Amino acid sequence: MSEQPLIGIDIGGTKIAVAAITSSGRILGCAQAPVCEQSSLAAFNDTLITLVRRALAEGGLPGEKPAAIGIGCTGPVDPAQGTVSNPYTLPLPMDSDITTPLRKAFDAPVLLENDAFAAALGEAWLGAARGRELAVCVTFGTGIGCGVVRAGRLQHGARGHFPEIGHQILDPTGPPCYCGASGCWESLASGTAIGQAGQRAAQGPGGEALLALAGGRAEAVDARLVFQAARSGDPVACHIVERAVRATAAGVHNLVHAFAPDAIVLGGGMMCHYDLFEPAARAAIARITIVPVDGLLIAPAELGANAGLYGAARLAALSLGN
Amino acid sequence: MSEQPLIGIDIGGTKIAVAAITSSGRILGCAQAPVCEQSSLAAFNDTLITLVRRALAEGGLPGEKPAAIGIGCTGPVDPAQGTVSNPYTLPLPMDSDITTPLRKAFDAPVLLENDAFAAALGEAWLGAARGRELAVCVTFGTGIGCGVVRAGRLQHGARGHFPEIGHQILDPTGPPCYCGASGCWESLASGTAIGQAGQRAAQGPGGEALLALAGGRAEAVDARLVFQAARSGDPVACHIVERAVRATAAGVHNLVHAFAPDAIVLGGGMMCHYDLFEPAARAAIARITIVPVDGLLIAPAELGANAGLYGAARLAALSLGN
Repeated sequence: MSEQPLIGIDIGGTKIAVAAITSSGRILGCAQAPVCEQSSLAAFNDTLITLVRRALAEGGLPGEKPAAIGIGCTGPVDPAQGTVSNPYTLPLPMDSDITTPLRKAFDAPVLLENDAFAAALGEAWLGAARGRELAVCVTFGTGIGCGVVRAGRLQHGARGHFPEIGHQILDPTGPPCYCGASGCWESLASGTAIGQAGQRAAQGPGGEALLALAGGRAEAVDARLVFQAARSGDPVACHIVERAVRATAAGVHNLVHAFAPDAIVLGGGMMCHYDLFEPAARAAIARITIVPVDGLLIAPAELGANAGLYGAARLAALSLGN
Repeated sequence: MSEQPLIGIDIGGTKIAVAAITSSGRILGCAQAPVCEQSSLAAFNDTLITLVRRALAEGGLPGEKPAAIGIGCTGPVDPAQGTVSNPYTLPLPMDSDITTPLRKAFDAPVLLENDAFAAALGEAWLGAARGRELAVCVTFGTGIGCGVVRAGRLQHGARGHFPEIGHQILDPTGPPCYCGASGCWESLASGTAIGQAGQRAAQGPGGEALLALAGGRAEAVDARLVFQAARSGDPVACHIVERAVRATAAGVHNLVHAFAPDAIVLGGGMMCHYDLFEPAARAAIARITIVPVDGLLIAPAELGANAGLYGAARLAALSLGN
């Protein structure tokens, strides 16, 4: 094959995934490693280089030079500097340069975005938002991340900063968030928020079923167990899920009014429960009168865990002017 | 002078203002007429043409051909069709074409945007947001309008639709709004919302001072009187203003998280009370931790009632590729 492959790298809290991908989105080869094995920035960067080589070899392209490399990384990241400052979920100090060693090793452009942005770009390229003019892609996981893609390009804020619409305030009486506000979307509807509400509920009146599901250990309640309890009709768990659903309906309402998009894509691990969120989100959209919503797509993400990988590869392609 | 003038037209609920303006923003001549005098679409369009001729004549350019004409009009408007559908505050039927007659009369491009967008463009061109990379300009009047200007250009939604971030939900326990939601920004902090809350309060316990200010007629209470009462310490009026201020602080928080802008400009008639809103907005920004806010300007609009006129002229200039 004559076309040089693109490399997509997805760095999450638990694993690093790398793929060699064609410009039309076909995965040629993959490689991955757990994040926790890296003991220093140098070791981390060596792992990235090794994984790129392994993905190329796995794709039958050992020794091939990638056309460009894109990275989607759990934030905060600085795309201009190529650095990540996330000592909370990565074994790296603040301002860690994870792009320069790759650039030198492969003599190729290396682009960096945060993971939510990369996932949004992936969904806009090959997933639920493909072909859309203006897509807002929301990733529900530990937190709530969001990326806006206009005509196939990510929309940053001023000076390359990342909007964080997962931290929009939806209910001032809601729980305090580490972001400095109370009742933001993430504090009401993220996996962390649902798990924490479940832990509190398991210790309170009516929390017996949740507590039993967690083997009697309230601290073992997480979002997965809360959804499981809610699906079997446990009122306490239903209440928590309903709050998250209501917040998400309001969040979707606000996305429509902030951007007037033609696609809203809900993804991330929690959206295995898309069926619980969809009716309220659709009802919220149906009530909207001020912004035209005919032709507005609301859909679950299609690329699953690969969205960030595809998006990172697309980032690489965009750096080449493709 | 050799340069053909730009024409800016600002159509509000009460008056039509027209100015002939240079490409550097100098007003050459103005003309205006009340909206209520127009009895039909044809009469309305004749008035627009007459006002353009009068503005040119006033600028010492009788008979001159404008380079381009921009219109900011109280919405909803359809920029692609050049039509306005606002029978509520304009004496015009739905889908009224207010651009074609002007285009034919002057053989010049005619561009149309809604009034909040035009005002935002004006502030970004010559006002408080000049030189900024990504500005969000909010206009507080009867309603709350908003425009986002990126690198000097307005940001529409998909298919040219207008975002309406004045209708973002900030407090689900707030008043119902005609937009279909409850507790949106406009329902809490617009002039209409403040006036209506004042009318209700004037009839309730503690409403005596407000009622007296309105000459004993609760229905005569408007936002102006509520602010006046609040400034003299009336607790009921203070409560209403504080709710609007709190909502606006949350609205500003959300704008920062939705766009990561480097300027937020608050304008419109109600911002003669900017001093009451500013401290809470600044405090909300100071609490933000997720989106960098160093270098984020928050400021009152500078162009006052002329923002829409300047913005409309800028719209005309942009249509020429300037």
